[in-house]
Amino acid sequence: MPKTLEDVGEFGLIRRIHKLLKKEGVKTPGVTLGIGDDTASIRPRPGYELLVTCDCLVDGQHFLSDRIDPLDLGRRAMVVNISDIGAMGGQPQYALVSLGLKTDMPVEDVENMYRGFAMELNPFAASIIGGNITKTRDAIFIDITLLGEVEQGKLMLRSTAKAGDAILVTGFPGQAAAGLQFLLRSQSRKGIREHPMVRTYNTPTHRAREGKAIALSGYATAMIDTSDGFLGDLGHICQDSGVGAELIQEKLPVSEDLRQAALELKLDPYELFLQDSDDYELIITGAPKNVPQIRSAVASVSDVPIAEVGKITDSAGNIQLILSDGSRRRITPAGWDHFAKGE
Amino acid sequence: MPKTLEDVGEFGLIRRIHKLLKKEGVKTPGVTLGIGDDTASIRPRPGYELLVTCDCLVDGQHFLSDRIDPLDLGRRAMVVNISDIGAMGGQPQYALVSLGLKTDMPVEDVENMYRGFAMELNPFAASIIGGNITKTRDAIFIDITLLGEVEQGKLMLRSTAKAGDAILVTGFPGQAAAGLQFLLRSQSRKGIREHPMVRTYNTPTHRAREGKAIALSGYATAMIDTSDGFLGDLGHICQDSGVGAELIQEKLPVSEDLRQAALELKLDPYELFLQDSDDYELIITGAPKNVPQIRSAVASVSDVPIAEVGKITDSAGNIQLILSDGSRRRITPAGWDHFAKGE
Repeated sequence: MPKTLEDVGEFGLIRRIHKLLKKEGVKTPGVTLGIGDDTASIRPRPGYELLVTCDCLVDGQHFLSDRIDPLDLGRRAMVVNISDIGAMGGQPQYALVSLGLKTDMPVEDVENMYRGFAMELNPFAASIIGGNITKTRDAIFIDITLLGEVEQGKLMLRSTAKAGDAILVTGFPGQAAAGLQFLLRSQSRKGIREHPMVRTYNTPTHRAREGKAIALSGYATAMIDTSDGFLGDLGHICQDSGVGAELIQEKLPVSEDLRQAALELKLDPYELFLQDSDDYELIITGAPKNVPQIRSAVASVSDVPIAEVGKITDSAGNIQLILSDGSRRRITPAGWDHFAKGE
Repeated sequence: MPKTLEDVGEFGLIRRIHKLLKKEGVKTPGVTLGIGDDTASIRPRPGYELLVTCDCLVDGQHFLSDRIDPLDLGRRAMVVNISDIGAMGGQPQYALVSLGLKTDMPVEDVENMYRGFAMELNPFAASIIGGNITKTRDAIFIDITLLGEVEQGKLMLRSTAKAGDAILVTGFPGQAAAGLQFLLRSQSRKGIREHPMVRTYNTPTHRAREGKAIALSGYATAMIDTSDGFLGDLGHICQDSGVGAELIQEKLPVSEDLRQAALELKLDPYELFLQDSDDYELIITGAPKNVPQIRSAVASVSDVPIAEVGKITDSAGNIQLILSDGSRRRITPAGWDHFAKGE
């Protein structure tokens, strides 16, 4: 029988995690006091803004604990937070991890979750500097607070897109939505985890390196990650910037894999692309003349493709999709079925 | 029927909370971007260390949701975190609040929780700069990350007590433990909330102002808050400083109220004082000659009494209680019943 949290107790678990992080984690500069006192203490760099985000994953809401490995769950929870820091143009530095766990959980599973956290933090020389572990009776949860830094004046916002800007997107949104559908429809709980779309859902890729490069280039006007789906997050840009958008359907980067998956799922690939999907890609806006510079900023750190999919308009809150026959539809994050006919 | 979270939805709830915080909260200097983007952004002051702590309260573990008002629950959750910042000598500044809530919860209860957060933050000109709200099926939880600042070089640790130091404690530990016993034993769920000991448990007082004054005075060697009970936290100081302690039983500030409560509960008042109790008082160590300065640092900001209860020894990990007849007992945080006979 594997050892459970009940077997090792809270302090035993904490000792094991400290040991694991010492061995498998990294040391982040600027930490004047890490895990072990009432608070952690850090010395922020002058000339930098400090970014703080927190995202909470609850079993049954944001993941399905019986359909994801603990290592992947740890990675997923950290990626979600890293993506938020990256979307502001920042570099992740310090994480605090609050876990609500059940007493019958194997210790090894908790250790593997921490391995997943470290796996995502290590490439940034970022580390876990605090947190706490509490018992919960039912749905386990992972609440992470992630701190990062960005050079003063380089912070990327969602509220600063301008009419006339080009709209760019990294990667292939929608694949995570397809993965979730496969997960929800599958009977077997083991094999499905290796399906490529399911892997995209369970362990999405953040674009934090790309986000930082874009911010430092100074050529983008606004940026956001697609945690609420492409349309949901483009909607956030439009609402907070007081602008609208025009999308050209045939320019949307719907991957061949997503088309295949949509066929299999009997779903519309554009619905998967546009609606709720946990892909953690970036939407970037910028003046059309600066698009090449934005592209080359990304190319300097990664080979993720960037698609130009439309432009920002001055029609506040109005997002239009231009179909291949030239007709227009007004679209909203409410779901493909509810799209109203455009003017 | 009061409106529930299901009635107003997540975005409706968030709008209400923003409105409430705008009206009833304060604006903290240094916030360059608050709630509303992927992350919050702050500009830390040069010459200060940034403190970060997080504490999670889960229903049934850290509070009893049917025996505490939502306003008090909000206050309690924030006080627990403020106490951690104060125990380092810091000033609370920025909070991120993650809530796991049930859909049938009245909106008003959530608003009152936020009123409780603001009530504790406002006196420090501290504010909520981010967070998130998720659905949970069972036990609700409140996970708060609190950031604060302390002048470089003024950080108070638990690991720096020295043999020969006097041991001081603020207030009257043990009252929260008595309050919890009354709560657990009570049949009625309403009236008990107003019992003075229960109030001490439900809405403890932090000593963050006192902690900051002590840190700035420079006269204390170590400090910790009594969130794990007096003996538990004195034990943390001993373990992390590699020292021991001698306590004089008749100097322990067992309040008259606690004696009365212990009689009523048929419990030993010293057990309530020493063992697990959520009082959030401060244990302070300092050279005997500096005790008057520590006392006057505290007196400059508050009228909380300070008791000198013993001294730090070089017998690592050995905590002795000197009884009124001069005999000694070795005591550990394992419980009064398990106290071993001292040498």
